[in-house]
Amino acid sequence: MTTSGLALRSLLEDRSPDHAGAEIEISLTRVTVPPLLPDQILVRVEATPINPSDLGLLFGPVDPRNLVAGANEHGPTLRASVPRTLLPALAQRVGQALSVGNEGAGTVIDAGTDPEARALVGRTVALFGGGMYAEHRVARVRDALVLAEGTPARDGASAFVNPLTALSMIEVLRREKRAALVHTAAASSLGQMLVKLCKAEGIPLVNIVRSPAQVALLRELGAEHVLDSSAPSFQAELIAAMKTTGATLAFDAIGGGKLAGQILFAMETACVSTMTSFGRYGSPTHKQIYVYGALDLGPTEIPRAVGLAWSVSGFLLTYFLETLAPEDVARMRTRVATELTTTFASHYAETLSLREMLDPTKVASYVKKGTGAKVLVDPTR
Amino acid sequence: MTTSGLALRSLLEDRSPDHAGAEIEISLTRVTVPPLLPDQILVRVEATPINPSDLGLLFGPVDPRNLVAGANEHGPTLRASVPRTLLPALAQRVGQALSVGNEGAGTVIDAGTDPEARALVGRTVALFGGGMYAEHRVARVRDALVLAEGTPARDGASAFVNPLTALSMIEVLRREKRAALVHTAAASSLGQMLVKLCKAEGIPLVNIVRSPAQVALLRELGAEHVLDSSAPSFQAELIAAMKTTGATLAFDAIGGGKLAGQILFAMETACVSTMTSFGRYGSPTHKQIYVYGALDLGPTEIPRAVGLAWSVSGFLLTYFLETLAPEDVARMRTRVATELTTTFASHYAETLSLREMLDPTKVASYVKKGTGAKVLVDPTR
Repeated sequence: MTTSGLALRSLLEDRSPDHAGAEIEISLTRVTVPPLLPDQILVRVEATPINPSDLGLLFGPVDPRNLVAGANEHGPTLRASVPRTLLPALAQRVGQALSVGNEGAGTVIDAGTDPEARALVGRTVALFGGGMYAEHRVARVRDALVLAEGTPARDGASAFVNPLTALSMIEVLRREKRAALVHTAAASSLGQMLVKLCKAEGIPLVNIVRSPAQVALLRELGAEHVLDSSAPSFQAELIAAMKTTGATLAFDAIGGGKLAGQILFAMETACVSTMTSFGRYGSPTHKQIYVYGALDLGPTEIPRAVGLAWSVSGFLLTYFLETLAPEDVARMRTRVATELTTTFASHYAETLSLREMLDPTKVASYVKKGTGAKVLVDPTR
Repeated sequence: MTTSGLALRSLLEDRSPDHAGAEIEISLTRVTVPPLLPDQILVRVEATPINPSDLGLLFGPVDPRNLVAGANEHGPTLRASVPRTLLPALAQRVGQALSVGNEGAGTVIDAGTDPEARALVGRTVALFGGGMYAEHRVARVRDALVLAEGTPARDGASAFVNPLTALSMIEVLRREKRAALVHTAAASSLGQMLVKLCKAEGIPLVNIVRSPAQVALLRELGAEHVLDSSAPSFQAELIAAMKTTGATLAFDAIGGGKLAGQILFAMETACVSTMTSFGRYGSPTHKQIYVYGALDLGPTEIPRAVGLAWSVSGFLLTYFLETLAPEDVARMRTRVATELTTTFASHYAETLSLREMLDPTKVASYVKKGTGAKVLVDPTR
């Protein structure tokens, strides 16, 4: 018996020698599942979210508004031309039909010969590592997060990226011995998890959002410090919050623009205010901003008046997990499974089929990245 | 017997309750040397440079072009009003008459009772730690770098800031296991030392300067990679140099503007070009920019297309030295003393007296920070 199913692919084509006609095509293709290795399982994907981190791979460098709808034998397609200037950074993906979809969950429908693999048949598992926008996904037993009996796949769809990122922020805080945490775009799914986590752990958390509605949302979850960056008093409130909490660590999902620099400046101002003598180089207390998202694609602006004891760094979950001991990662995964419907619950505005993912109207909706606008894909539809 | 002498002071005054009339005054005052402790020496300061790092303390936040000349009983003075908006960051220096001058050298003219201190009378020593713009400086024996018999003070004037910063860059490179180094404002005194050091150590060094004349100057010293950031081909040459050297570490003296980000982008582009498969998050190789100067006071702009494995950090020599073992610092200091007139030779465009430091025409000249424009102060004049 061979199993086959649809899978989404994103292909960058650059056929002409002068790179004039480079195009990206997102389409569905039919894939035959290869024979399973002893420690492998075959999962029928039933729920997989569209995270901001998926969009970069899905649409490459093109503006999703420029996508043109088409069709092939398996369903709808989307194409857009790629500006020549962007090609050098993408050289390695030319000609490759990339699978997409960071994480998801579904039912194990087949397994290799290992007893550990066979034991999972019929169970719901959550997976991480790409290729989830597909009817089937092969995985190794050790990479699967086995969910409690009876857990619907929908509950496990987002069990990796956001929960492990939130838990990693706490790990970083402990490793670097920081007193408190600052988080931007804090009304996001991840931000809401972090509010609950920090409350449970007794960690002071300064949430930065950009509207009064988002302030209300986080207050309802029990957040103590919530600042609206659109308020005229924002900078003053930020400095006050840094003084109150002593935060010298921030995770920034926005990346571009002035916010990361404003946070750093507020931390420095708060640190300097506690100094008993004038420090010509500012405060010697080290301040750290991790940029883990790119909601703003512009450059990050760091002002000069932040002293000399600071770092602004990129942060990627997978790089960070590699620095942890396996038992620490296991502890984090167990916590996610245990608190899947409480601390780590995700909410979705809409559920799409694989074909609907390629509908330009739906694309326009799910690329917006607004609070509460997270979209789930159910490839069985 | 009491000894007294002139010393420069920078005083920020903020007398009015509404902070309207805040002023900075730079002047000379007469200071009586206190009785020496057993392990102290009294140095007649004979040569002390004006480093870019001295200017911030000297003039505070005011534009040196706004200084108004005056006089008191000890000589000329300079005053300028301080904009009210800049006062919060300076709260801790209000009302303090700060001594200035990071480093210098001179002759030991008196000593405490310890034999180690007495043994230095008559010797030339180099000092670090502030207060050098003065006729006299008291220091502990263990803080003095004793120069070879017969060394003129002028040769030891700049024995700390630039030499130890250059050596620290090499220490950082080794600690972080980096293959090569990038340096900006590379035609500076420090940059010239670094060229000689890296050549001696066999470390590939990419020098970034901003004129063809500076390229010629560094080439004459034997520098291999010298890039002119004013050339239209700069970005392409920068990427090529990152590919050739594999540099993932830079020390940036400029701070503000786009250059640090351009270097990071070039490193990332070079790293990505060696990847064998497409990495959606860019290259996993960590890249590090240390900002150690502020020749441009604007914000540092970091573009988004630099992957997620990077840090941009402030760097201060004294913070770094504190992370080293005492024997490593001793090894670095010994090397400076040994190579004072070769690797670590400094050149000065002009020598001023303490009173001439307060001459607006001289100020205009020494704040320019141009290559080869370094100024020495000789308080015995």
